[in-house]
Amino acid sequence: MNMLSANQIEITLPPFPRGCHLITHLIEKRLPKLPKFGLLHIFLKHTSAGLTLNENADPTVRFDMESIMNRIVPEKQQYEHDYEGADDMPAHAKSSLVGASLMIPISDGRLNIGTWQGVYLCEFRNRGGSRKIVITVLGGPPASRS
Amino acid sequence: MNMLSANQIEITLPPFPRGCHLITHLIEKRLPKLPKFGLLHIFLKHTSAGLTLNENADPTVRFDMESIMNRIVPEKQQYEHDYEGADDMPAHAKSSLVGASLMIPISDGRLNIGTWQGVYLCEFRNRGGSRKIVITVLGGPPASRS
Amino acid sequence: MNMLSANQIEITLPPFPRGCHLITHLIEKRLPKLPKFGLLHIFLKHTSAGLTLNENADPTVRFDMESIMNRIVPEKQQYEHDYEGADDMPAHAKSSLVGASLMIPISDGRLNIGTWQGVYLCEFRNRGGSRKIVITVLGGPPASRS
Repeated sequence: MNMLSANQIEITLPPFPRGCHLITHLIEKRLPKLPKFGLLHIFLKHTSAGLTLNENADPTVRFDMESIMNRIVPEKQQYEHDYEGADDMPAHAKSSLVGASLMIPISDGRLNIGTWQGVYLCEFRNRGGSRKIVITVLGGPPASRS
Repeated sequence: MNMLSANQIEITLPPFPRGCHLITHLIEKRLPKLPKFGLLHIFLKHTSAGLTLNENADPTVRFDMESIMNRIVPEKQQYEHDYEGADDMPAHAKSSLVGASLMIPISDGRLNIGTWQGVYLCEFRNRGGSRKIVITVLGGPPASRS
Repeated sequence: MNMLSANQIEITLPPFPRGCHLITHLIEKRLPKLPKFGLLHIFLKHTSAGLTLNENADPTVRFDMESIMNRIVPEKQQYEHDYEGADDMPAHAKSSLVGASLMIPISDGRLNIGTWQGVYLCEFRNRGGSRKIVITVLGGPPASRS
C-alpha cells in the first residue's frame, strides 16, 4: 500500500483519416514521468470517435475493424439525425459501442499492457479533424509530498 | 502532483422509459464538491441498462441510438433466456456492448467533458424501473487531511 | 474524504472454452484485503477476449451472449486478417465492443455491484489459453500511512 498522487494533461491529436489508428506511441511520448504503479486514464472529448485497445502488430486488424464497424452500424440506413452527413449518426453509435476512454494499469513505472495490446484511436467521421484527449495518471509513491 | 482523496455516494434515478436519456444534469446536481482535479466514476448496478457518453444537443441522436441498438440485437430472435420477456436478453447484451460505467476527468473543479458530450442512461428494458448508481470521486488536493 | 492508497496484483486465469464465463469468485478469492471504500480495476492483457459485467444467475444468459456476439461479428465473412483462423479477427472486434477492463466501486470493504451483476470473462477464441489479468485496488483509508 502506497499513498497516491495524480497528474493530468490535455493533448490534441493531429487529424486522422477515417479508420482505426495505433496511437500508443503518441500517448507515451506525451506522458509525464509515470509513478511506480497506478493507473493511466485516457479520455477522448468527442462523441464520433472512439478509444480502444486492440492488436498492435498487423495493420490488417485495423482495416478489418473499420469494415466490421461499418457493417454493424451501416450508413445506408435511415437516421433522424442526418444533417451532418451520412457518416455522422453511425459515428455516434460506434463511439458508444467502442467507448471513449481507457484505463490502463501502470506497473514498475510502465504501462502494463499485454504484448499485443495497443491503443487505437478509431476515427469514425470522414473528416473528424483534431481530437482532444485528457490524460490522468494516478499512482504512487508520489514524486513529491506537500 | 497532489495527494488524492475520495468520496462516494449512491443515488437512485427515477424510472425512465425505454430509450437513451441525457442525465448529465441529474448526476451533476447530486455530486459532492469536486476536487480541483481528478476522476469521476459513475457505476450502474444493473445488467439491462447502460451508461455511455454521447451527443448532448440533438434529441434525434438519442432516438437513433435506440433504433440502432435494436437492429444490432433484435428481439425477434430465438433466445434461451426468454422468461422475462422478449426485451430482456437483448437488454443484457446491449448493456455489455455499451457498458455500465463511466470514468470522466475532473479539471479545475469541473467535469472535463467535451462541448458535445453528455451522460446517457440507456434504458434497454420496456419497464426497467428505478436504477441505482454509485458515484465515486477521486481527486486532489483533498478538502481535508487527517 | 479520506486519503487513498493502492495495491496491485497480476493473476493468470485458467484456460476457458470459447464463450462467456462467470469469474466473480475467481477474482474475489485473489483480491487483497479491500479498503473501506474505493475502486477496483480489472484489466485483461489480451485483444481477443473481453471483460464485462452481466447477469450472474442464469447460465442461459451467457449462452445467448455468445450467440449474439457471433451474429454481430460473423465468422463467415471475408477478413484481411485471417492467418490465425476464422475465429481470430471476429475475436478482436468483439474484444473492442465488449471491452477489456472493468472499474467497480468498493463500499464498506466489499465490491459494490448490483444483486444480479457478475464479472464475465468472454473468451472469443476457440482455444484462447490462459489469460492474464492485472487487478488494481484504489481506496481508503489506507492500511498504513508513511
